[in-house]
Amino acid sequence: MLKLILGNKAYSSWSLRGWLAAKLSGLPFEEVVVPLYDEGWDRRREGDEFAPSSGKVPILWDGDVVVWDSLAIVEYLNEKSGGDRFWPADAAARAMARSMAAEMHSGFQALRRKHSMNIRQVYPPARLDNDVVHDVTRILELWAQARARFGGTGEFLFGEFGAVDAMFAPVVTRFVTYSIPMPPFAAAYMQAVLSHRWMQDWIASAQEEEWVIERFEQTADAR
Amino acid sequence: MLKLILGNKAYSSWSLRGWLAAKLSGLPFEEVVVPLYDEGWDRRREGDEFAPSSGKVPILWDGDVVVWDSLAIVEYLNEKSGGDRFWPADAAARAMARSMAAEMHSGFQALRRKHSMNIRQVYPPARLDNDVVHDVTRILELWAQARARFGGTGEFLFGEFGAVDAMFAPVVTRFVTYSIPMPPFAAAYMQAVLSHRWMQDWIASAQEEEWVIERFEQTADAR
Repeated sequence: MLKLILGNKAYSSWSLRGWLAAKLSGLPFEEVVVPLYDEGWDRRREGDEFAPSSGKVPILWDGDVVVWDSLAIVEYLNEKSGGDRFWPADAAARAMARSMAAEMHSGFQALRRKHSMNIRQVYPPARLDNDVVHDVTRILELWAQARARFGGTGEFLFGEFGAVDAMFAPVVTRFVTYSIPMPPFAAAYMQAVLSHRWMQDWIASAQEEEWVIERFEQTADAR
Repeated sequence: MLKLILGNKAYSSWSLRGWLAAKLSGLPFEEVVVPLYDEGWDRRREGDEFAPSSGKVPILWDGDVVVWDSLAIVEYLNEKSGGDRFWPADAAARAMARSMAAEMHSGFQALRRKHSMNIRQVYPPARLDNDVVHDVTRILELWAQARARFGGTGEFLFGEFGAVDAMFAPVVTRFVTYSIPMPPFAAAYMQAVLSHRWMQDWIASAQEEEWVIERFEQTADAR
């Protein structure tokens, strides 16, 4: 059976992406949550299970096969599950979805650095730095184009929930956490993501986590 | 025919990755080089061809289909060319190659920021910052493991030249440009990359570019 190693559910945005990818695959998987930043972390991250990634999460083990980055996990599971669950079938939509997922994977660093994921908190609105505004604007542009061109009758960016929604799901929670104003189309999309049963499960687990902090140093959100 | 839009060949590391991916596909493609940072850049990057990526390169057009990130271009062309040219066939090797490519895509930011690609220059050795040493050490660890486990009788990370070599090719040129000391196994791998006919072609084009600068602000190397 697949084994997915995750960080703290309240804070580890890349773990959320990897977990949603595992859900999307439809394959059974064992989930191992290793809280970040607690006292045991330095010891545990040196175990064999963490060696391939040098300690970062998420990590997917499939027998002896290991994949250690959220986007690589998406593509690995896409192939393993038959190639039709993660990306839209239409060529133009598929190309756009892959491009958006890749842009999320390497970009939006101001938003990621200055507004780290914290599923358990909602902060009052605050003035955003210019580089964060730039990131938010670009994300809304991408969401709007995807919805307008390929959303069809579905609620998600390309209709059904897919890999690109998994990649942007932590951004959705950040927009809520930091009370960032949203146009109606984006608010509707966010509501669809937050209402999805997988997100409801994840959020419930994050709420129940015993070991939480309100703020933390953003070092584990590097990919 | 495919059309690939690139930045300056001497400096745009992501363009090099996209271009090597196009070569790997075996498909014919038209190459459009739009030098970065020159006076016409602000005007040209606003054209329709640049709209999907908000101005960043590389961008691949396949008729009306557009893909605008190097790793997305890799996966797009992998599917288009039949799925056996970019990643190793062996499952464990394929998973490791995808993980390494993804780690390159989002990581090693100290190396990328402080040692930007400049194919036309070689600088004398200098003391490296600690975060750069960390990046270099991790890259060498990945290269060593890939070569040892999956290199076989080939010269590249997983034997034949593949997507992961394309992703790390700009790092190879940086290690040369900044005279970073290398262990023998890495030096041999770098020599194989630099001797590859595609890299020879790219380097020759970079040397011939009329519009070059010795140093530049590292703003277009964001993915």
